[in-house]
Amino acid sequence: MDKKDIVCLGGGNAMPKIVLQGLKKYPIRLSAICAMLDSGGSTGRLRKDYNISSPGDIRRSLLALSNTSKIVKGLFNYRFEVGELKGHNFANLLIAAMELSSNNYEKTLSEIKKMLNIKHQVFPATLDKANLYAVLENNKIIKGETNIDIPKHNGKLKIKRVFLKPAVKAYQKAVKAIEKADLIVIGPGDLYSSIAQILLTKGIPEAIQKSNGQIVYICNLMTKFGETNDFSVLDFTNEIEKLMGKELDYVIYNKGISSKIKFKRQHPELINPVKINKNLDKQKFIGKNLFKKGSIEHDPKKIAKILLNICKV
Amino acid sequence: MDKKDIVCLGGGNAMPKIVLQGLKKYPIRLSAICAMLDSGGSTGRLRKDYNISSPGDIRRSLLALSNTSKIVKGLFNYRFEVGELKGHNFANLLIAAMELSSNNYEKTLSEIKKMLNIKHQVFPATLDKANLYAVLENNKIIKGETNIDIPKHNGKLKIKRVFLKPAVKAYQKAVKAIEKADLIVIGPGDLYSSIAQILLTKGIPEAIQKSNGQIVYICNLMTKFGETNDFSVLDFTNEIEKLMGKELDYVIYNKGISSKIKFKRQHPELINPVKINKNLDKQKFIGKNLFKKGSIEHDPKKIAKILLNICKV
Repeated sequence: MDKKDIVCLGGGNAMPKIVLQGLKKYPIRLSAICAMLDSGGSTGRLRKDYNISSPGDIRRSLLALSNTSKIVKGLFNYRFEVGELKGHNFANLLIAAMELSSNNYEKTLSEIKKMLNIKHQVFPATLDKANLYAVLENNKIIKGETNIDIPKHNGKLKIKRVFLKPAVKAYQKAVKAIEKADLIVIGPGDLYSSIAQILLTKGIPEAIQKSNGQIVYICNLMTKFGETNDFSVLDFTNEIEKLMGKELDYVIYNKGISSKIKFKRQHPELINPVKINKNLDKQKFIGKNLFKKGSIEHDPKKIAKILLNICKV
Repeated sequence: MDKKDIVCLGGGNAMPKIVLQGLKKYPIRLSAICAMLDSGGSTGRLRKDYNISSPGDIRRSLLALSNTSKIVKGLFNYRFEVGELKGHNFANLLIAAMELSSNNYEKTLSEIKKMLNIKHQVFPATLDKANLYAVLENNKIIKGETNIDIPKHNGKLKIKRVFLKPAVKAYQKAVKAIEKADLIVIGPGDLYSSIAQILLTKGIPEAIQKSNGQIVYICNLMTKFGETNDFSVLDFTNEIEKLMGKELDYVIYNKGISSKIKFKRQHPELINPVKINKNLDKQKFIGKNLFKKGSIEHDPKKIAKILLNICKV
């Protein structure tokens, strides 16, 4: 039988670490579509100096899908700790240098895939340059992904909406992958600073709307300070559906209970477990204990099992 | 018949570009042994901040022996032109990050060889850290390879001798390669700032003395300001023989005549054609027109032909 096409949208650490790592060993065709408008840290410095596409998020997906030696993984994960390169992640420098030296992002990706022995696909959501903006409930406008991700403003204020400026067009191969997908997986990850920037990319929601694939959202375990302070599963769901202009087929959410204290210690920005609404439609909302044993993260194996079940692999 | 072992010693651009590129396609086993004490430019900045082995010279040998796509070569040769990374060569950053992340130089080399699809061997002369010093004829001491290479002192003063401080020990695989070599090729390249640092490495001259291989020195085309101002073929020969404590079997020198003006324009530091002494022993001194047509450089093909002829490949 022909292999199923699964497309995963996201940024940050969560989607690559949970969804891609969970699915990569199965006999499917996997495509990661990565957020490209990060503006913090090493990525932000490189964007500022070299006007390149953000390397940070796509690097995480590339690494998650890599099949290479420990030493090459160590290299790609290496961050200079001192000196003039302090804070730079090596793979960010690699992606930057390749984009700058080749002037060809597609070839850049294809060469890095070879270096990392990647069998699946990794696409940028867009190669256009833009900034992510958030409008707060007091109508104040916050500019830049990093300032939404790590608020310098009063993080108790709700985000009314987010937008990109200038508007950006989707990377064509990402559009094609979504259109022919059997399954479209969104998240987990920061709703506004990570997922929204992909769903705001011109061509991405249109492709999702056009696709016959089933659409699954993997809801976060915890709410995030400054982004989703008191969010419930339905709040996340509604925002995603609004952004993509289509209803989700499935929402996977966590019913397991974990120690809030453990969370706070490891991730002070994650403030509360996502509220579970009453009377959720059981056809659409799949509630399970999603924790990896002994950790406060999604279990990639559990997630893979649910997704492959939906997709009938 | 078993393949011949040819070992090439040098640094800078000349040896890799001329000897390695010329020989790499032939059915021989080639080992490059690279100068490791450069202290200028991107290399110097990385050495200073990260206490690593100099990546610059070994990078040039790796690149010369690479069999990879144009885009990967472009990446390895890429130098950041602006911003906070200005002046850094990407491959220097790669070698530095790999050394730092793996803490294992041998594995670093082996992974980079894989990335560049290199069939031959590349070894550092040493992994010990030291500085190259030159004693001038007025007994002034100059510290650091880059200050000998590009003199800030009065470059008309002759160099009496060079030394390393602290003393460094040779990389063991480099020693082994020299010991079993059928042919040992030295140069071309800067006599003091490049070749001497290899021949001053403890274990290298001893290995050359022990080896049964024939020893060939490829003499430079031009003398270099501050290093070899008025040198003749015999001056170069004598210095090399003194440094390695053994007589050369062959010296390859240039008898072709080129435009001095063309030289001056491209390489202002190269001041005069190397003087050809009278009555050179024709058994030892092989004089040919070594110019690549239309250029002022050694022709890799001509050099390869002479070397393979000596080696009977």
